Amino acid sequence: MYKTVQYLLLFGLSLGTLNAQTRTEKDLLGEKQIPANAYYGVQTARALENFQISGMTTQFYPEYVKAFAMVKLAAARANADVGRLKKDRLAAIEKACQAVIDGKYHDQFLVDLYQGGAGTSANMNVNEVLANIALELSGHKKGEYQYIEPHDDLNMGQSTNDVYPTAIKVALLLHNDKLLKEADLLAKAFHKKGDEFKDIIKMGRTEGQDAVPMTVGQEFHAFGNQLDAEINALKKSEVYLCEQNMGATAIGTGITASPGYAEKVATHLAKITGKPIVMSKDLIAATTSQQGFVMYSSTLKSMAVALAKISSDLIILASGPRTGFFEINLPALQPGSSIMPGKVNPVMPELMNQLCFKVMGNDLTVTIAAQSGLLQLNAFEPVQAIAMMESQGLFFKAMPLFRKNCIDGITVNKDILAHYMDRSVGVVTALNPVLGYEKTTELAKEALATNKGILELIREKKLLTEDQIKKLLDPATLTGQK
Amino acid sequence: MYKTVQYLLLFGLSLGTLNAQTRTEKDLLGEKQIPANAYYGVQTARALENFQISGMTTQFYPEYVKAFAMVKLAAARANADVGRLKKDRLAAIEKACQAVIDGKYHDQFLVDLYQGGAGTSANMNVNEVLANIALELSGHKKGEYQYIEPHDDLNMGQSTNDVYPTAIKVALLLHNDKLLKEADLLAKAFHKKGDEFKDIIKMGRTEGQDAVPMTVGQEFHAFGNQLDAEINALKKSEVYLCEQNMGATAIGTGITASPGYAEKVATHLAKITGKPIVMSKDLIAATTSQQGFVMYSSTLKSMAVALAKISSDLIILASGPRTGFFEINLPALQPGSSIMPGKVNPVMPELMNQLCFKVMGNDLTVTIAAQSGLLQLNAFEPVQAIAMMESQGLFFKAMPLFRKNCIDGITVNKDILAHYMDRSVGVVTALNPVLGYEKTTELAKEALATNKGILELIREKKLLTEDQIKKLLDPATLTGQK
Amino acid sequence: MYKTVQYLLLFGLSLGTLNAQTRTEKDLLGEKQIPANAYYGVQTARALENFQISGMTTQFYPEYVKAFAMVKLAAARANADVGRLKKDRLAAIEKACQAVIDGKYHDQFLVDLYQGGAGTSANMNVNEVLANIALELSGHKKGEYQYIEPHDDLNMGQSTNDVYPTAIKVALLLHNDKLLKEADLLAKAFHKKGDEFKDIIKMGRTEGQDAVPMTVGQEFHAFGNQLDAEINALKKSEVYLCEQNMGATAIGTGITASPGYAEKVATHLAKITGKPIVMSKDLIAATTSQQGFVMYSSTLKSMAVALAKISSDLIILASGPRTGFFEINLPALQPGSSIMPGKVNPVMPELMNQLCFKVMGNDLTVTIAAQSGLLQLNAFEPVQAIAMMESQGLFFKAMPLFRKNCIDGITVNKDILAHYMDRSVGVVTALNPVLGYEKTTELAKEALATNKGILELIREKKLLTEDQIKKLLDPATLTGQK
Amino acid sequence: MYKTVQYLLLFGLSLGTLNAQTRTEKDLLGEKQIPANAYYGVQTARALENFQISGMTTQFYPEYVKAFAMVKLAAARANADVGRLKKDRLAAIEKACQAVIDGKYHDQFLVDLYQGGAGTSANMNVNEVLANIALELSGHKKGEYQYIEPHDDLNMGQSTNDVYPTAIKVALLLHNDKLLKEADLLAKAFHKKGDEFKDIIKMGRTEGQDAVPMTVGQEFHAFGNQLDAEINALKKSEVYLCEQNMGATAIGTGITASPGYAEKVATHLAKITGKPIVMSKDLIAATTSQQGFVMYSSTLKSMAVALAKISSDLIILASGPRTGFFEINLPALQPGSSIMPGKVNPVMPELMNQLCFKVMGNDLTVTIAAQSGLLQLNAFEPVQAIAMMESQGLFFKAMPLFRKNCIDGITVNKDILAHYMDRSVGVVTALNPVLGYEKTTELAKEALATNKGILELIREKKLLTEDQIKKLLDPATLTGQK
Repeated sequence: MYKTVQYLLLFGLSLGTLNAQTRTEKDLLGEKQIPANAYYGVQTARALENFQISGMTTQFYPEYVKAFAMVKLAAARANADVGRLKKDRLAAIEKACQAVIDGKYHDQFLVDLYQGGAGTSANMNVNEVLANIALELSGHKKGEYQYIEPHDDLNMGQSTNDVYPTAIKVALLLHNDKLLKEADLLAKAFHKKGDEFKDIIKMGRTEGQDAVPMTVGQEFHAFGNQLDAEINALKKSEVYLCEQNMGATAIGTGITASPGYAEKVATHLAKITGKPIVMSKDLIAATTSQQGFVMYSSTLKSMAVALAKISSDLIILASGPRTGFFEINLPALQPGSSIMPGKVNPVMPELMNQLCFKVMGNDLTVTIAAQSGLLQLNAFEPVQAIAMMESQGLFFKAMPLFRKNCIDGITVNKDILAHYMDRSVGVVTALNPVLGYEKTTELAKEALATNKGILELIREKKLLTEDQIKKLLDPATLTGQK
Repeated sequence: MYKTVQYLLLFGLSLGTLNAQTRTEKDLLGEKQIPANAYYGVQTARALENFQISGMTTQFYPEYVKAFAMVKLAAARANADVGRLKKDRLAAIEKACQAVIDGKYHDQFLVDLYQGGAGTSANMNVNEVLANIALELSGHKKGEYQYIEPHDDLNMGQSTNDVYPTAIKVALLLHNDKLLKEADLLAKAFHKKGDEFKDIIKMGRTEGQDAVPMTVGQEFHAFGNQLDAEINALKKSEVYLCEQNMGATAIGTGITASPGYAEKVATHLAKITGKPIVMSKDLIAATTSQQGFVMYSSTLKSMAVALAKISSDLIILASGPRTGFFEINLPALQPGSSIMPGKVNPVMPELMNQLCFKVMGNDLTVTIAAQSGLLQLNAFEPVQAIAMMESQGLFFKAMPLFRKNCIDGITVNKDILAHYMDRSVGVVTALNPVLGYEKTTELAKEALATNKGILELIREKKLLTEDQIKKLLDPATLTGQK
Repeated sequence: MYKTVQYLLLFGLSLGTLNAQTRTEKDLLGEKQIPANAYYGVQTARALENFQISGMTTQFYPEYVKAFAMVKLAAARANADVGRLKKDRLAAIEKACQAVIDGKYHDQFLVDLYQGGAGTSANMNVNEVLANIALELSGHKKGEYQYIEPHDDLNMGQSTNDVYPTAIKVALLLHNDKLLKEADLLAKAFHKKGDEFKDIIKMGRTEGQDAVPMTVGQEFHAFGNQLDAEINALKKSEVYLCEQNMGATAIGTGITASPGYAEKVATHLAKITGKPIVMSKDLIAATTSQQGFVMYSSTLKSMAVALAKISSDLIILASGPRTGFFEINLPALQPGSSIMPGKVNPVMPELMNQLCFKVMGNDLTVTIAAQSGLLQLNAFEPVQAIAMMESQGLFFKAMPLFRKNCIDGITVNKDILAHYMDRSVGVVTALNPVLGYEKTTELAKEALATNKGILELIREKKLLTEDQIKKLLDPATLTGQK
Repeated sequence: MYKTVQYLLLFGLSLGTLNAQTRTEKDLLGEKQIPANAYYGVQTARALENFQISGMTTQFYPEYVKAFAMVKLAAARANADVGRLKKDRLAAIEKACQAVIDGKYHDQFLVDLYQGGAGTSANMNVNEVLANIALELSGHKKGEYQYIEPHDDLNMGQSTNDVYPTAIKVALLLHNDKLLKEADLLAKAFHKKGDEFKDIIKMGRTEGQDAVPMTVGQEFHAFGNQLDAEINALKKSEVYLCEQNMGATAIGTGITASPGYAEKVATHLAKITGKPIVMSKDLIAATTSQQGFVMYSSTLKSMAVALAKISSDLIILASGPRTGFFEINLPALQPGSSIMPGKVNPVMPELMNQLCFKVMGNDLTVTIAAQSGLLQLNAFEPVQAIAMMESQGLFFKAMPLFRKNCIDGITVNKDILAHYMDRSVGVVTALNPVLGYEKTTELAKEALATNKGILELIREKKLLTEDQIKKLLDPATLTGQK
């Protein structure tokens, strides 16, 4: 399913002369030669000259290309519903959109993800390519715009200012599906380990200090449950992406859109995407507001916070082998050091931590971009899309590696845990309800001072009967499982 | 209702010898003299020495003090329900908690908000003060802990690790009520202006460039609707605060808590606070997870993004009077300049912008603190509480000022808006569906080049009939209201 | 030197009727009654009504009040130098400024730190108070502005737009002195421990895994050296604060300022503050640029990063006592838990970590505020001042506590370190140059598999002579000290 | 110099079977087949399996590849200097390093930039490739490591923990040269416009309100000077990158490195790079500290703050054409809207703003990664490198586009500026020193109320003689240029 593509390097972009033959197109700024075999047109060609920044183009994310096609398909159908787009043009446009949704022609979507103009170049690239595909699929030649026109037909009743943010939202939703699927598998992997380790008792720690007993199973189920909670939050955050502004056109007043169109495009888009997409009740507010991006990005950040914390815990729990906690073993994936023989490092949690830090940085980018809007529009949506799609991609690419190469292979050093349990004074907490805080505090102090165990002291001092001891210090009781 | 209190300055903190008379208390580290009239005890006294940082103490936020008392009240009732806390002790503790909820004794909650120990000092301050109030209210003297004990009774079946984050959540919920009330009044103020200005037509702008017509009413309703959307988001985010971990005790295993207690404390707390508070299904995950704080703080940030954007818009719209947009007038609150006579500045939106920037910074503090937890606990909850409560306080203090001193007094410069409408070429967009994008582009170019109006050109060129003009350029149509 | 002051609570601000008697003052917006005994005037009174946000006022930071007085003193002297301010007025103003620099009248500087208007209220508060002090000290009554006028004399050749950012910079410089003094003492405390522990050998760790030997002394000197490096960076960053824009007046063109004044005020300010303050070479750029704040705040953040890392390391090194690293002991300051008897927590590093997270958040606030300026001015300097002064204050209040209550009392558990050394396989790295990476890797694997020590294996296999062993594994050699 | 390369897509990575023929290599984890024609070895092969995340590999940044080769070259020469590396091996390694510095073999550096293991994979990729190049260039076959070994020769006296951060620093320094060159050209472009517009007078604005006069030339020189100040700051920040830790090896104790080597490698590296690279005085602190990255990244952020502010100003100044400030014209690069005919948008400043927001986000990534280190090492350097190199690349790719396609083509609408000057009341400020603040305030109020000009009023009221008027309101005086 994965494929290698020709990619334009950040530090050396050259579009080359793809083709000696050209056709002529023109726009507000004048005429321009377009490679004859290109499906894109004059405005894309200008954008290719204006924005050569990152080398990452629309096609870098196939779901993003598909999202644009879905939006254009919904718009075309809605325009036909209200009697504005003719049936034959609809048919041609539908075929073109479907082809792109099916993964074809993606190499024509080559505007840099970084762009000024609030996404106009990306939208026009889509309009031009879909128009030319539609022309070809209905028996015309590229550039014969008298039959199907990029602005008048493909952008009918639309504006970059509604199409672009809506396409981003659809792409984010499609990516969210991929992300949630991988996150769910990862959570399940933690829960599986939770079941596997459910009978292994260990000391819990708070503030780095020995606290009270728990099981390794509880610890891993808690990892899983934290992740499950983030999955739920990401699902809930979809509501912020599902509210969109198609029908707003330029600023939300719906200028150039036909009556009834806005409601219908929402319905079509919901059907096409399978997501509960709705029209915002205030299209003017929706066109300028970035709440959808801010809230979704924040939820990605929340997942990053959880995964970074879990990864750090795994690194600490696996620390050692001789001078650390060494409670668990992570699978050895590669020699850990170019200098220290035999060293194996927690490379997967370290990788995950780093992704999470990038996701947190990306959330800040979204925040600053979102608050920097001006009046009826926020022209900084491209960088928000870049930041969020990067975060999603990092997650759904790394999660399966983290799961298979790390979590699935974790084992527990039972002897070490048992040793810790024997030596810990933290079990004294369990005696609080019977002996009172003051008495147990004295016991703890004495244990630490004399290097004795708590049980030893209790028996020496006959503070409890053997029956009481058995009941109070039963592992299932201690760990709250009874 | 507001009162001036004795406050300990950041740069000059002196607790002084409040009282020559003392009583003796002791703990793990030894004996200590406590002022005889103090309700707090030995552990509070240690904290007062250890943490003299910000001068802001628990009592700085009355809701925070009340939240602690509510949590302790719920715990005491739950402990009585399961038969562990005796009725007479319950009665005394209930009286003490209620007194604090009623606003009494707040001057005894004087541990610095900044503290190490994951909130232990704040919790023990609460335990000690409530114990001594309960003692006094039931006829005993302060310090006679044989009747009611700070640990064994007030902290019964509890740990700082469940009490502290739960009290923070309750405080955040109480503050959220205050915040939402003010935010709602602010949104209503925008909507009222929206109604007032509903018939005033103006040019909308995208990317700072003239776009298409709208009404000033639409613009102000959109401000209101953006704020309404943030209010809804903050309400939704309460769900993340309502899930709490009482019953978890030290690490979530419930050690020292009685069976049945955890469920009951959640029920009591829901009743006392009037909020749908529930017990987390995984108390171990809940004790270490910071999701509740991260998600709520992120939503505060989202509101900050919206309010910062709205404030910036107001500043731009009011720019002038002679060299700016000058579409609206903000009330003059104070001479604007120490050097430029007659200058009046947009001080209220500037104030709001700055609060928002602080809220965004506070969200980062929460993010970093949340991801820095270690194993079964996150010891950095105090700074998260500080950051979020600061953000809430800034909002609910500033919003009424912003509303009354700015929004309510906004007026519109109708002549200027009318002048802009006459001169704008942006209305040409409305002709797209009739004339096509290419033709209208030419018209726009000509208008700009000749400094003519669009209508003038249309009539010159007889591109439309007067009927068509009337229909296409009707304000209600242009602004999407028909 | 520290004192307790009357403080206006965030949640209950009431200026009260300080005095029944009043005098009348007026400004652009009309007349206003001022308490007769107040040194402040009409514009301060308006600001008190407009900004009741945080309860923290100019006087919250004594150095901030002093900084304003220093700037006004320098300006008055420069105005006298160029022949514009009369000698007798200068004399009166000098006395007033000096009184404030000496710590008097601070209770009159009571404008909220949060304010719109780019600091105009703070500046006018200063102008009014200094004018009235000067009046009184030269035998006039408060309000007799015909002798000394807040605008014409105290703000002569000045604007809030040069006075305010310059006063902030001076305040930051004064605070930086306090901060560097405490940071230096803290670094020295680490170095002292470095010397104390210089002969104790331990295992270093990378990625949480056992690495190679070092001494505890090296570890603590490295803490000290990291802090020294941050101290140096903060010193270097002063250059960004020392470039200021006095003489710029409103936008940098120097309108209303007399020729020669700008150069002279810089010289006077340098003399008064003892800092190498210079005039920016482009006063227009300097008036809008926030580089000084951004760079200084970033350096505070850099120190926060270093201190947070050091604090986290201390927490890990002190983890235990029975189930952690337990290499070092932090002094026990307070019982560590409300539930777990005998537990002592690393409260001081936890406190420091939290301060650092707040400082990082504050740096973000500065960043966003700095990039949100508009044309010739950035109106968001107040919140930048708030954020940076809060960060400085947190540092210089917490550092001495951290030093005295934590670092100075750290002890080492030598037995544990020795045990770790005996068991570690990391010393095998030292044999690389003799045996080669492949051979030593095999040795390490065998040691881990058989639970043997490296030395034991070497002797078994006769890989090295005793002489070689002695030389290669000599502690001084191993730790790079020979 | 730029070239198009085969790139591995984020969402579809496939290394394919580059070659049917293989050779066998082995490491700690066992044997592995390596493509016979690959210069990389077994550890690179493992990394290719473990880290398939972003599709961006070491070679994505040619300077990064070169930096590694420079570090290895310096190390080899230093090892030869101290008599440890044999002359013939040195000669072979020198040739290999030089070939890579010359841009050859870059396609062999294909480990994902995202990686766990603190850079071990990147370092081993370099060791393996250089070893095999050296083997071939000295007449041996790939894999004949008995002649030149990746660990023992290429990593001699080194560790990933000194090589990797040092290579990052060198790469950042090389990129900084590219960035500063472009930034300098951009600043010069602003200054050129400053000269071009030096006689055009305009109204300055503070807080969006009309303030006092200045020239357009002053405004553009101020843009240039702000950028110059950031260039200077970036140059100063190089000092934080020039301090490096070669010779530290694993944790800073220099284990496996020969005496004298550390000093010599710094000298060689300084010579090879042409940068004043020095050895850190505390190699242990230097190995764990991230100060160099934090400070350099913060300075990139400072430049982003400045450029974002400048870009926002350009957008506002160009707003219009009919309903905005419309003081300047930005070159029209592409049709501005898919719906609004004739609209031309400020795409280049918008692009620049977005890059700046990404740079700010990246700085946060660096901050969080830097503070998350553990004991003797920070394993999160890879993501810091990714973040900073991305920021640098965005800057030096976008700056020339911004300069050529925007700044160089800016023109001024003189008529509009003259109109603003005529109508403004802000010139009244210039009369302050003559008429006093109170009188001029009244004048300003009257002008605003009567819609008259200030001059008109002055003459009506005979407040000044014509001589005074001429002198006080002379443009050169007003704008501080006389």
